[in-house]
Amino acid sequence: MTDALLDRHRQRLDDAVAASASRTYYSAFDESPSPRVYGEDAAGAGKAAFEAWLGGTFPLSTPGASGAVSTERSPFGFDLGVSYPRAVDVDALLSASRAGMKQWRDVGPEGRTGVCLEILSRLHTRIFELANAVQHTSGQAFVMAFQAGGAHALDRALEAIAYAWTEMTRTPATAVWEKPGRGEPLRMEKTFTVVPRGVALVIGCNTFPTWNSWPGLFASLGTGNPVVVKPHPAAVLPLAITVQACQQVLAEAGFDPNLVTLAAEEPDDHLAATLAVRPEVRLIDFTGGNAFGDWLEEHARQAVVFTEKAGVNTVVVDSTSDFAAMCQNLAFSFSLYSGQMCTAPQNVYLPASGVATEDGVKTPAEVADGIGAALERLLGDDARAVELLGGIVNDGVLSRLDAAADGDVLVASRTVTHPAFDAATVRTPTLLRLTAKDADVYESECFGPVAYLIETGGTDESIALFRDTVQRHGAMTAAVYSTSDEVIADMRDAALDAGVALSENLLGGVFVNQSAAFSDFHGTGANPAANASYTDGAYVASRFRVIQSRRHV
Amino acid sequence: MTDALLDRHRQRLDDAVAASASRTYYSAFDESPSPRVYGEDAAGAGKAAFEAWLGGTFPLSTPGASGAVSTERSPFGFDLGVSYPRAVDVDALLSASRAGMKQWRDVGPEGRTGVCLEILSRLHTRIFELANAVQHTSGQAFVMAFQAGGAHALDRALEAIAYAWTEMTRTPATAVWEKPGRGEPLRMEKTFTVVPRGVALVIGCNTFPTWNSWPGLFASLGTGNPVVVKPHPAAVLPLAITVQACQQVLAEAGFDPNLVTLAAEEPDDHLAATLAVRPEVRLIDFTGGNAFGDWLEEHARQAVVFTEKAGVNTVVVDSTSDFAAMCQNLAFSFSLYSGQMCTAPQNVYLPASGVATEDGVKTPAEVADGIGAALERLLGDDARAVELLGGIVNDGVLSRLDAAADGDVLVASRTVTHPAFDAATVRTPTLLRLTAKDADVYESECFGPVAYLIETGGTDESIALFRDTVQRHGAMTAAVYSTSDEVIADMRDAALDAGVALSENLLGGVFVNQSAAFSDFHGTGANPAANASYTDGAYVASRFRVIQSRRHV
Repeated sequence: MTDALLDRHRQRLDDAVAASASRTYYSAFDESPSPRVYGEDAAGAGKAAFEAWLGGTFPLSTPGASGAVSTERSPFGFDLGVSYPRAVDVDALLSASRAGMKQWRDVGPEGRTGVCLEILSRLHTRIFELANAVQHTSGQAFVMAFQAGGAHALDRALEAIAYAWTEMTRTPATAVWEKPGRGEPLRMEKTFTVVPRGVALVIGCNTFPTWNSWPGLFASLGTGNPVVVKPHPAAVLPLAITVQACQQVLAEAGFDPNLVTLAAEEPDDHLAATLAVRPEVRLIDFTGGNAFGDWLEEHARQAVVFTEKAGVNTVVVDSTSDFAAMCQNLAFSFSLYSGQMCTAPQNVYLPASGVATEDGVKTPAEVADGIGAALERLLGDDARAVELLGGIVNDGVLSRLDAAADGDVLVASRTVTHPAFDAATVRTPTLLRLTAKDADVYESECFGPVAYLIETGGTDESIALFRDTVQRHGAMTAAVYSTSDEVIADMRDAALDAGVALSENLLGGVFVNQSAAFSDFHGTGANPAANASYTDGAYVASRFRVIQSRRHV
Repeated sequence: MTDALLDRHRQRLDDAVAASASRTYYSAFDESPSPRVYGEDAAGAGKAAFEAWLGGTFPLSTPGASGAVSTERSPFGFDLGVSYPRAVDVDALLSASRAGMKQWRDVGPEGRTGVCLEILSRLHTRIFELANAVQHTSGQAFVMAFQAGGAHALDRALEAIAYAWTEMTRTPATAVWEKPGRGEPLRMEKTFTVVPRGVALVIGCNTFPTWNSWPGLFASLGTGNPVVVKPHPAAVLPLAITVQACQQVLAEAGFDPNLVTLAAEEPDDHLAATLAVRPEVRLIDFTGGNAFGDWLEEHARQAVVFTEKAGVNTVVVDSTSDFAAMCQNLAFSFSLYSGQMCTAPQNVYLPASGVATEDGVKTPAEVADGIGAALERLLGDDARAVELLGGIVNDGVLSRLDAAADGDVLVASRTVTHPAFDAATVRTPTLLRLTAKDADVYESECFGPVAYLIETGGTDESIALFRDTVQRHGAMTAAVYSTSDEVIADMRDAALDAGVALSENLLGGVFVNQSAAFSDFHGTGANPAANASYTDGAYVASRFRVIQSRRHV
């Protein structure tokens, strides 16, 4: 059964492995929600499937659960009202989680990888349902939820499965070792078995419940570890659907469905902190704020901890060959999902003396005007604006945005009325003016639609500030605009020093906050914003161990 | 220059990579000290080179050093009297260590790997000198010091370099990504650069100063990290020679020699603990006792910590087809280097009702007699015995051995007179009788020539005790003797559960305490005895990070 699953998906696995090695373009799951791709009925059926969950009890049983939680409200203005079992008895949960571990270990890499790939296929058939669930928990606009929360998340999951597969199978299952000697050679037969570390805990976030949780989930599951999924209380449904799909495939393939469980909680239950220090928990994947991420790295000593936290994403503007395209590209990056991405740019350094362009030197004020005009083009029409901005995910973002209005505002935020959802909270980004002296402001992340235009003494100072700030406070992304090869070289060098990926002169359809699975690494693990990267060898290699036996033959 | 070095050693690298993937037999450095292999003069010249160091000042300069330390005494009964710079000013040391890091990063995997392979070649030319240095610091007999401290250590170093090479080069240096679209494809050129984590600290041990330090040293250096080598105060010379060779090759190739430094100390300086928590130190490789190893895992949170500690290595004896060969194999494992190996067997579980053999059932007393007779054959002649036993490395081992004499002694230890070194401390192993109830004794490691024959209610209980004890206290090795396929299967399953490598029915020239580079993993990282394994992907993958840049083309 399980080998048949691997056979069914073998081409996809091989393609993913090859793309990860070449870093060339590959995608296994079409990112277009077009009826031409997914069929005329898919969008409607997916929306109906999502709506059928609303106000009801999600049909999952969690070992050790007691009572129910219902904690989700759409940023588009309505309560989801879905109830999930409240995970209470951690002993019972972890005991049930481990119950099927040995059978899962013994089926081997082929069997586990086949099951994981089949789960992706099942999730793919529910991509419109997932997109609606992601939209109405994260606040992402529908198309983004379909892409980032559906197709791209599936690609990132496949990438993690491919890396885990490569890592598990680089050591053969058996080998014969023959050492020549004076007489008969010494000859030994050896076996090498992949064994799991223990229970894996995946702690989901509010803004990217699938995209940020699936890589760790499938990397741990594929390497033999049972997975407890602890969703953010405001974004449970996408992961409940995920766990349901996992359990269905596991059960059909003859495994204990509790190898993947959902651990939902009330916001004050502190379930993640409780689970994270349990001796049974040996792997943790976390996406979220620095405070709890740092706490996990510090306190969950018994586990290998992978964190994606936050930093101050930086753009150094020196000069450009296409001022309008640069402004348009930056404006899009500020606007996409209202800047509520760990990869959205925040700090834009530029010389106080101005930026050389194809149309002469532009002063900082003119750059701000250029970005403002580009924002107006993108967001001037409310109906179009909401499809880029999505909704403000929570009150924390809103209050930071409100507080920003007290600054030196270059471009003001504006309230947008959603044509379909009256009660949606939608805002355009704001741009504030700072100088190099305002380190107390720009050295902290202001998560949401707030960006800073920071005037420096020149590009050398801009690069120095970039290097220093990222080394101390981290970043998920960085970008540079310059027509000078020397500046580009200096910026590359600074990015290597700071340990952050660099995008150079983005003027077209690629944006600094987007990364492509199989080619772009997400996060580097080389600065304080994250200790892990999607997906490199380090992300999978320590999720399992190889145990050998040997005997004379 | 550096590419020429890689070219020179390319075949060796490729062979090592291939062997690591196939786990078949491979060795790059001949383990025979025979003149036919190394030439008539090699042994004498190496001994003379070693003796030339005695009583003198070793010509290394350590940044921030002040004064000198001279801390080594041969277990064969004389002071080495070699002086090394005493590392005092940690700021100066770490600053100098980092000074050449950027140049070392920028030369890339090819350049660094070429330098590392050239260092191995230089160390190989000094293998007899190293063997003498290892012998007279660890107490290993000469041939073992030549093999384990020389040839096998070089093979393990090569293995680590090969794994690091594979891991660094699995991502290409550049790639072109082209995403099809409705109009022109999106086309981006990407670069991927391996960047180091920071300073790597290698903390050496007394018993295997080279074999246990070189894998971490070369894994870190090859991936771009400067390395500070902190030797055990009783085993400095082998690592001083190592650092000297590293610095010579680095300098010749145009790099800062302080990329590898020696940090020698007085025994009470606590230099390792001071260095281990410095923010500059991002990688730590440690071999030694559990107390400090656990402390490092707990406290050095800014670093990735790789530890090889200790456990209770176990043999389950159920039945055998060749009683004499089994006793001989076990006796050799107890005797080799007086059991002063983290891989030496300690706990031998067997049914109180006896062990089935080709010659009928043997009672525990008869098994003890068989082992005793085998020990007598191996060690009855003092001149031959010392070549297997080596010297007792320190007073701690001696006092544990003395204390063991108060137990229920089945085979007594005996003092051996070394024909060449009057003042050498040489002892044969002792075997004590315990029962399953004596957990307070057998659940702790008694490092040195002390083994326990533990009577159980039967093989089922033996296997249960093995599984449970190793899960709680760890083990580097395990072995089983049985003619029953069912017992072997049960024991394999228990070994997977306990996370320890298993040797089955060793009756010939392979011993449980020995592992072969490129084929056998040393340690598993899956039980409390070690959190790392020589060498798997996890041992190298997190020693560096990949930083990318991308731009439209």
